[in-house]
Amino acid sequence: MKRRIGVLLSGRGSNFEALADSVAAGRIANAEISIVLSNRDDAPGIAKAKARGIEARAIPSRGLEREAYDRLIVSALREKQVELICMAGYMRMVSAYFVSAFRERILNIHPSLLPAFPGLESQRQALEHGVKFSGCTVHFVDERLDAGPIILQAVVPVEDGDTPETLAARILREEHRIYTEAVRIVLDGCYRIDGRRVLFERAHEKV
Amino acid sequence: MKRRIGVLLSGRGSNFEALADSVAAGRIANAEISIVLSNRDDAPGIAKAKARGIEARAIPSRGLEREAYDRLIVSALREKQVELICMAGYMRMVSAYFVSAFRERILNIHPSLLPAFPGLESQRQALEHGVKFSGCTVHFVDERLDAGPIILQAVVPVEDGDTPETLAARILREEHRIYTEAVRIVLDGCYRIDGRRVLFERAHEKV
Repeated sequence: MKRRIGVLLSGRGSNFEALADSVAAGRIANAEISIVLSNRDDAPGIAKAKARGIEARAIPSRGLEREAYDRLIVSALREKQVELICMAGYMRMVSAYFVSAFRERILNIHPSLLPAFPGLESQRQALEHGVKFSGCTVHFVDERLDAGPIILQAVVPVEDGDTPETLAARILREEHRIYTEAVRIVLDGCYRIDGRRVLFERAHEKV
Repeated sequence: MKRRIGVLLSGRGSNFEALADSVAAGRIANAEISIVLSNRDDAPGIAKAKARGIEARAIPSRGLEREAYDRLIVSALREKQVELICMAGYMRMVSAYFVSAFRERILNIHPSLLPAFPGLESQRQALEHGVKFSGCTVHFVDERLDAGPIILQAVVPVEDGDTPETLAARILREEHRIYTEAVRIVLDGCYRIDGRRVLFERAHEKV
């Protein structure tokens, strides 16, 4: 039986598409994206998933408290028997309930070298701070913002002529690469967590 | 006349030695280290400077308020007519008085990719946070801790087997390289500051 992945998104879902491409191409072997869920009706990622033949739907969050909403999401994910959840531009904090339901089974990708520049508009934050390198981070999700143990990071240079858009595009290419690699690592189980450190049991093949 | 550099240190001064080597080898051309000052009597960097024939002395800070102490330091630096000040493991915050006396003429190097892991034991902080890359930062000094505009950064990988000491050694090699490069950039004046961003007027030759 294939390993079952659920994806959560709120927008265009470019990292969802990269993961779906990796699954289709066998770079993430023996797996499938079983469900795509969005908190927003109008997320373009929903239509993109359907166009790929992947089940996808919105579960609107309006009027629901965080945990009440997360119970709906967890229920939908359990119904599909997913074992790994990948956030791909999912613009919500998750509750302790959600985290404990899928302990060390929820991944997120963030467009900065965390712990620098958490939150929104990380690329603009990085540019305005004047850093010379930025990048992206795949991490386990916990109840805090962009703060769980780090699985992989990738570095890109910041160039003098960069705008938030050009920097974001450079980082996005690395996001697509390391998200696939991180999913493989977590599905393979070839890691252990020591404090906040994610250590690799053996060398993993790079994508 | 040679460009005159002052160095401030509190300890062994390995970055001082790297700068002195770069001056001696002509990698920082037409410059000299005119004075080395320490806030600690027992800083090994003082003896190392003297062994190189560089004037060096301690100005103990005990019992002096920050600005009163900085007046002594600024006076000693002005007496030697230095135009650029390089902190090399100088374990003090500086006052607004000091910063305004040498506006955009004080550099520091810090062993992390700022704004991540400011303050003490950056390498241990980085390891414990579980980042996959760390590095070092040369920045202009202002009154805040490790916070002025960034001139150069360098990146190193964090390895699973790292201790704070092995990571520090890997970073230190990059510190020596980029500190020399940053001093050249600032002495050459081939940069401008836009907000917090240090932008280069023309490509600078790498060391």
